Amino acid sequence: MSTGSSSDPSATLAALAGETQLADRVRFVVELDRLKQVLRRTVVTDDRRRENTAEHSWHVAMMALVLADAADEPVDPMRVAKMLLVHDIVEIDAGDTFVYDVEGQESRAARERAAAERLFGLLPDDQGDELQDCWLEFEHGTTADARFARALDRLQPLLLNHASAGQAWREHGITAAQVRAVNSMIGDGSAALWELAQHLIGDAISRGWLPETGR
Amino acid sequence: MSTGSSSDPSATLAALAGETQLADRVRFVVELDRLKQVLRRTVVTDDRRRENTAEHSWHVAMMALVLADAADEPVDPMRVAKMLLVHDIVEIDAGDTFVYDVEGQESRAARERAAAERLFGLLPDDQGDELQDCWLEFEHGTTADARFARALDRLQPLLLNHASAGQAWREHGITAAQVRAVNSMIGDGSAALWELAQHLIGDAISRGWLPETGR
Repeated sequence: MSTGSSSDPSATLAALAGETQLADRVRFVVELDRLKQVLRRTVVTDDRRRENTAEHSWHVAMMALVLADAADEPVDPMRVAKMLLVHDIVEIDAGDTFVYDVEGQESRAARERAAAERLFGLLPDDQGDELQDCWLEFEHGTTADARFARALDRLQPLLLNHASAGQAWREHGITAAQVRAVNSMIGDGSAALWELAQHLIGDAISRGWLPETGR
Repeated sequence: MSTGSSSDPSATLAALAGETQLADRVRFVVELDRLKQVLRRTVVTDDRRRENTAEHSWHVAMMALVLADAADEPVDPMRVAKMLLVHDIVEIDAGDTFVYDVEGQESRAARERAAAERLFGLLPDDQGDELQDCWLEFEHGTTADARFARALDRLQPLLLNHASAGQAWREHGITAAQVRAVNSMIGDGSAALWELAQHLIGDAISRGWLPETGR
């Protein structure tokens, strides 16, 4: 049973799993654990620590189950949830890019493509291709499911920013014009949720959490 | 647009969302954020901090997508993933109960039932019932999907414990006999994954991370 003195848990795991396809899948599962170390700018509402990408992914997947009726076009809640479970896995290698970071957004596509190659490449071919297609569908945003998934991915930090008195906005000097520009894509998936988002933005302005223009 | 001086973000949100059903759903979504503060005993592999239940839920839902082929009976990967997204929401009120805490496990059912009443009760009736049924299916473990979901829910901390040199086991003085007893239900969902689990336990013993008997 002993695997000797190897100190690489991933290699040990592969040896222990025996059958190659299962070993590859289990190594991918252990690799996924690293998404819990990727920090976003948004803070969680209770203790105001920065949110990590794994818990964000759970939160938006749950939103797909709960809010699917608010989509403008018919969507499959579980397809949307699947896309949202998978959409940020590339951040294990590429890191989180703040939506208001213009330079970061320019280099984001190339960094994330390389990350997708490596990470989904850990899986057996058919399964890696399936998850990569799922990620690309989200990135391209050309299906009804993807448009709604992207709307939820924008609405979630807006809800947390509102619930935390605009903490991430204030820390990074974000203006209402920037928030509207970045989040208007919510309207591509759901008019009702974009209306809610605009109310939240207006409320944040009126409470002094979000300036109309820069300092 | 101003909502005056209310300092309860949840009430503000309800006022801003307008339509009642949408308001209830969005308040539930904001409530879900609190699952990110519920800490488990298991540590994440890289920085060895304790894992929270939201990121655990994401991790096991991803395992459903990746490992469904290892189930002994045919399962619907997305039904399993949905169950795993929902299975620990009750911990927002009931807290996490360590699987090796015998007394805690005895009071767990009652605490979690009350939590389910309150939390799923925040949603419109049909939707609250749907998520509660999903949670109960997981708890009862009588369908093939639920048996596999429960197997993954046990395998995930075992993988993290193995990858972190048994940190949570060592901190809480857990023995191999306890690990085998608590995790044997992995075999109810997947013989292949239970075989892997037994290899991991054996490897942990041989490396000195897990004693056969108590200190």
